[in-house]
Amino acid sequence: MEVATAQRLEPEGSVQHLFDLSTVDMAGVDSLIHDRLQSDVPLIPALGDHLVEAGGKRLRPLLTVAAARLCGARGDAHRKLAAAVEFIHTATLLHDDVVDGSQLRRGKVAAHLIWGGSASVLVGDFLFARAFELMVETGSLQALGILARASRVIAEGEVLQLTRAHDLQLDQATYLVIIRGKTAELFAAAAEAGAVVSGATAAQIAAVAAYGLKLGLAFQLADDALDYGGTSETLGKNAGDDFREGKVTLPLLLAIQRTGAQEAAFWERTVGQHEQSEADFRRARDLIASTGGIASTLALAHEYAEEAKTALQIFPRDEWRVSLEALADFAVDRAA
Amino acid sequence: MEVATAQRLEPEGSVQHLFDLSTVDMAGVDSLIHDRLQSDVPLIPALGDHLVEAGGKRLRPLLTVAAARLCGARGDAHRKLAAAVEFIHTATLLHDDVVDGSQLRRGKVAAHLIWGGSASVLVGDFLFARAFELMVETGSLQALGILARASRVIAEGEVLQLTRAHDLQLDQATYLVIIRGKTAELFAAAAEAGAVVSGATAAQIAAVAAYGLKLGLAFQLADDALDYGGTSETLGKNAGDDFREGKVTLPLLLAIQRTGAQEAAFWERTVGQHEQSEADFRRARDLIASTGGIASTLALAHEYAEEAKTALQIFPRDEWRVSLEALADFAVDRAA
Repeated sequence: MEVATAQRLEPEGSVQHLFDLSTVDMAGVDSLIHDRLQSDVPLIPALGDHLVEAGGKRLRPLLTVAAARLCGARGDAHRKLAAAVEFIHTATLLHDDVVDGSQLRRGKVAAHLIWGGSASVLVGDFLFARAFELMVETGSLQALGILARASRVIAEGEVLQLTRAHDLQLDQATYLVIIRGKTAELFAAAAEAGAVVSGATAAQIAAVAAYGLKLGLAFQLADDALDYGGTSETLGKNAGDDFREGKVTLPLLLAIQRTGAQEAAFWERTVGQHEQSEADFRRARDLIASTGGIASTLALAHEYAEEAKTALQIFPRDEWRVSLEALADFAVDRAA
Repeated sequence: MEVATAQRLEPEGSVQHLFDLSTVDMAGVDSLIHDRLQSDVPLIPALGDHLVEAGGKRLRPLLTVAAARLCGARGDAHRKLAAAVEFIHTATLLHDDVVDGSQLRRGKVAAHLIWGGSASVLVGDFLFARAFELMVETGSLQALGILARASRVIAEGEVLQLTRAHDLQLDQATYLVIIRGKTAELFAAAAEAGAVVSGATAAQIAAVAAYGLKLGLAFQLADDALDYGGTSETLGKNAGDDFREGKVTLPLLLAIQRTGAQEAAFWERTVGQHEQSEADFRRARDLIASTGGIASTLALAHEYAEEAKTALQIFPRDEWRVSLEALADFAVDRAA
């Protein structure tokens, strides 16, 4: 009854409503994605379909669409940018899965295990280039600059993560630089570019970029918590991948700090030396839970989600704004 | 004194003169390359320097500069495009060496053998994104579109090559599609983009694009011939790499056709099944030479070099045009 009342007062206050509002735009984006995956080289659409049409949440292109509509978009330039954003994201997934040797992606066998790592690298390059072709079509150099910069920062974040794997000394500040680079900057750019092609004011553009950045940080923090608390079904990838790959994320980093000398040998062997048995992940997960590593990570995610919502306050409280506020909560609550 | 005389008669008719003419521009390009390789993530400039500052011939950015000057370039937009072209090329080299498992590049140990394949993939992504950031700075959407398209076609050419490796049925037409994609389209785009930012006419832009395309085809044909006739010193990579990787290039394709049933079992084992001993490359090289596979490949390269020169006839016969004509000859003669 409380829920029903709340919904009557705020019908638009849900992520589902955001998807509903965006149905026509996202159908247009899907159509563009399907169209631009085509190539005379048959392996490209085959591999692309496997990953792109598996879908995933399409959160990043949704962000472009929603930011554009929030800022009064007309025309279809924001759909082309949204498709470009999804292509950039998919290209990085293809490359990351090769880098990480991941087994599962979006609930399906990772592409490199079917077609080989070489095909994944090259099709990733294809998608990246296609993204820029789509951006050129919009005629917006400003949007292009935003997404080119984000693409560069993503690569920097990934390289930083790679060079700091297995590093027990990783501090929280560096961890935040990594997740900002590998995740949050594309969320920010996705929203910012959508605003830019919609004739938004400088203040509006800055506001949606700030929203995207904070949302991305909240989203990645929740993702990193889920990796120790979720199941393969909710993740679409294997739980424990971060631990197995030696990635030092915030839940692990906090557990290492909080268990101190007592567990130093365990962390040094499993993370530092990367010698793990199947039971080690379960023990790590227990230590992370018992030291509050997951709770603290989600608390920080909540802070960023609140900051994301605050950034939207310059906009009138229409259904786009309220749905985007709901998205910020959802980014964290899915992991709680 | 003789040099002075020769310079007076045909001062411009040499590749060296092309480099001389471009000295100031190319120093600017080098400076941009060095500058934009920088990153807060130390692995990126380290790996980038290894490959980019090893230099190579810098033919593609030289092409951008020369095409721009031929069309009366002012300002420095063509230098930024030239640096972007070199970044795109270097990104593809990094990714190709991972894909091919190559040992040697530009006379140095391949980057993936020093820093790992993951680092090569991600730094390639960084360079690709940086290239687009540089292009955005020029403000030319037209140049951006040309180079985005070329980047996509390169990926398609590489994927096509990958899917047709070990394929004894590969025909000459498909081979030409592959080398056009993986090599010639970037030569064409490098020249075309240089013309575009120099206020060239549509006819001039088309002419330098045609020159670049034919030059690229001639260059790759000569490269493929060199892989069976050159030494590691002249190549900057190992001779025989194509054969060892199962790439069916024109010299091999012709030898397979011309030796017919007599050597079918040898080709099937070494190329089709990819079972090779050290002696097999030498035998393949002998068969290719004795059936005229190298001579025919170089003859076709010569044809394209002539077509490249013909494409320049709409320009006045100034020192830029004459030097670019010399470059077309050089692309083939270095392999003769």
